[in-house]
Amino acid sequence: MDRTMTSSADTTTEPALIALDWGTSSLRGFLMDGGARVLAERATAHGIQNLPQPGPAGFDAALAALCGDWLDAHPGLPVVAGGMVGSAQGWVEAPYVATPADATTLADRAARVETASGRPILIAPGVLHDPAGAPPDVMRGEEIQIAGALAENADWARNACIAMPGTHSKWVRVSDGRIAAFSSYMTGELFAVLKTHSLLGRLMPADREASPEDEAAAFAVGIRAAQSAGPGDLPHQLFATRTLGLTGRMPAEALAHYLSGLLIGHELRSGLALLAEMPAGTPLLLIGAPALCSRYGRGLAAFGVTPSAQLGNTAPRGLFQFATAAGLLPIGTAANTMSAP
Amino acid sequence: MDRTMTSSADTTTEPALIALDWGTSSLRGFLMDGGARVLAERATAHGIQNLPQPGPAGFDAALAALCGDWLDAHPGLPVVAGGMVGSAQGWVEAPYVATPADATTLADRAARVETASGRPILIAPGVLHDPAGAPPDVMRGEEIQIAGALAENADWARNACIAMPGTHSKWVRVSDGRIAAFSSYMTGELFAVLKTHSLLGRLMPADREASPEDEAAAFAVGIRAAQSAGPGDLPHQLFATRTLGLTGRMPAEALAHYLSGLLIGHELRSGLALLAEMPAGTPLLLIGAPALCSRYGRGLAAFGVTPSAQLGNTAPRGLFQFATAAGLLPIGTAANTMSAP
Repeated sequence: MDRTMTSSADTTTEPALIALDWGTSSLRGFLMDGGARVLAERATAHGIQNLPQPGPAGFDAALAALCGDWLDAHPGLPVVAGGMVGSAQGWVEAPYVATPADATTLADRAARVETASGRPILIAPGVLHDPAGAPPDVMRGEEIQIAGALAENADWARNACIAMPGTHSKWVRVSDGRIAAFSSYMTGELFAVLKTHSLLGRLMPADREASPEDEAAAFAVGIRAAQSAGPGDLPHQLFATRTLGLTGRMPAEALAHYLSGLLIGHELRSGLALLAEMPAGTPLLLIGAPALCSRYGRGLAAFGVTPSAQLGNTAPRGLFQFATAAGLLPIGTAANTMSAP
Repeated sequence: MDRTMTSSADTTTEPALIALDWGTSSLRGFLMDGGARVLAERATAHGIQNLPQPGPAGFDAALAALCGDWLDAHPGLPVVAGGMVGSAQGWVEAPYVATPADATTLADRAARVETASGRPILIAPGVLHDPAGAPPDVMRGEEIQIAGALAENADWARNACIAMPGTHSKWVRVSDGRIAAFSSYMTGELFAVLKTHSLLGRLMPADREASPEDEAAAFAVGIRAAQSAGPGDLPHQLFATRTLGLTGRMPAEALAHYLSGLLIGHELRSGLALLAEMPAGTPLLLIGAPALCSRYGRGLAAFGVTPSAQLGNTAPRGLFQFATAAGLLPIGTAANTMSAP
């Protein structure tokens, strides 16, 4: 799954940074210029839980396989990384920094590891949110994407709510350019675990897809159920995934879409309550995989909410911000010009 | 796991019924007299998903292994069964009857199967609740336990709320002697699936138990989280099982008890909302395994609610009611005298 692309027609631009988005199941590398443009991008499945060999050598081997040629061709280029590579199970641990946090906070508390060749890599920490009277929450990787998103629009940096759908979705309150607070939702993992390991998955056929109409209808039924839910109702509403199938009220191949709508609907219900506590007019941004963001967009529409923007992969730009804040890039780069009005 | 016991000192009583509580993972047999007393009780692990051999012969073999001697010694005794044995995956399907339902409704729609020896068994159907504007719900096995509970107290039969903790907990509204409505909650299955298959279980040690103090404290934290939850908050609150462990706020061996408190708390929150819609003074009954009922009792106490009664296994009495309603027992039995004031 190696792929290389040139994202800009301006191939004369000089490389200025090698940025790594290193998660649990994948490793993405970006060769970037001094204007935060991605010159080339590559990905492998060598996430930290899928390294080519165990132990620290596995990280070195994964890195060499992904972009050994970049490292060789540009021996002076700084290398930065974000994501699970900085967790306790990663290459080196970069402990969580507390909210409020921004790219500067991340850079101040970054961890450093040397590759086998002696080349240093600066690894970003995750973020801990520890509100009074509630359990703490954590993110690792999303803080980089957020830094990238905020670099794109000074208005968002001042005040925004960022929804990041995924295995562990995040709803993030941004204020004064920093991550002020956030909540994680186990939506994606709940869906996968219930579909694969619970009674609810038994009625879902593995070999048939729902028609677009059935899919949309089932998803909408799930969203509506979430909209009508009282506190505590989810464990009951989940069971309907079974009874709707058992009684033939919903086609078997559409049941997973009811489950998806129900779980996303509950996340939206809770997340939008957080948004409602923010200043009127606070923009809502969606960051994530396009197909999933589209699904969230349909759910949000049922709540009468339209996101201000839907962003794709903002990680390279965030890693660029991180590298800049760490002083690894010369003055005059895109990041520094960002703060100009 | 064969066990036989004599539950009454009156060993001279004549057997009048063989009653089978045949679920997914276990088969229980009761030899009962005409006064609804259990003379002997046996159990094996031959639930319908664990038969000694596949196909219909497996049901015959399981029955013979459990109580072939009873069947031989009492060739004229009626045999009844309830539970998953009547499902589509059971010995013979006894389709669901609709609410409102009682023992008579169950008897009217019972299915009949003949054993290899020609001995007939009457199998109780499950119950379907199909409210307007909401997904349908189903039970199979609980309706028998409810019939048994209602036979114990005429006040309960008139009006009661019955909470039945378990893999798929039920909250049941009883009115005028019948099951009027009910809701299932996936509480037990959610706990098991999340503990075994999700990220939340990774921090839970398999080889250490929490101290009673840590267990009680963690369970209480989970209950309190549920009490403070807004609609849709559960997928977020679940994630705290991880963060409380990750940050050392809660001992690893107590995390499962937080998860248990959180899930039970959400069920109680929703179930008590159903109770609140019932007439003032409606008794709340708990039916289930004593350890689980005790856990629910602790949860209910946090909500300021005390159950009117906690019942153990009411299935044999319910099967007796079912057999009586089906005309399999002579007039003058306990069931018939029940209706006398």
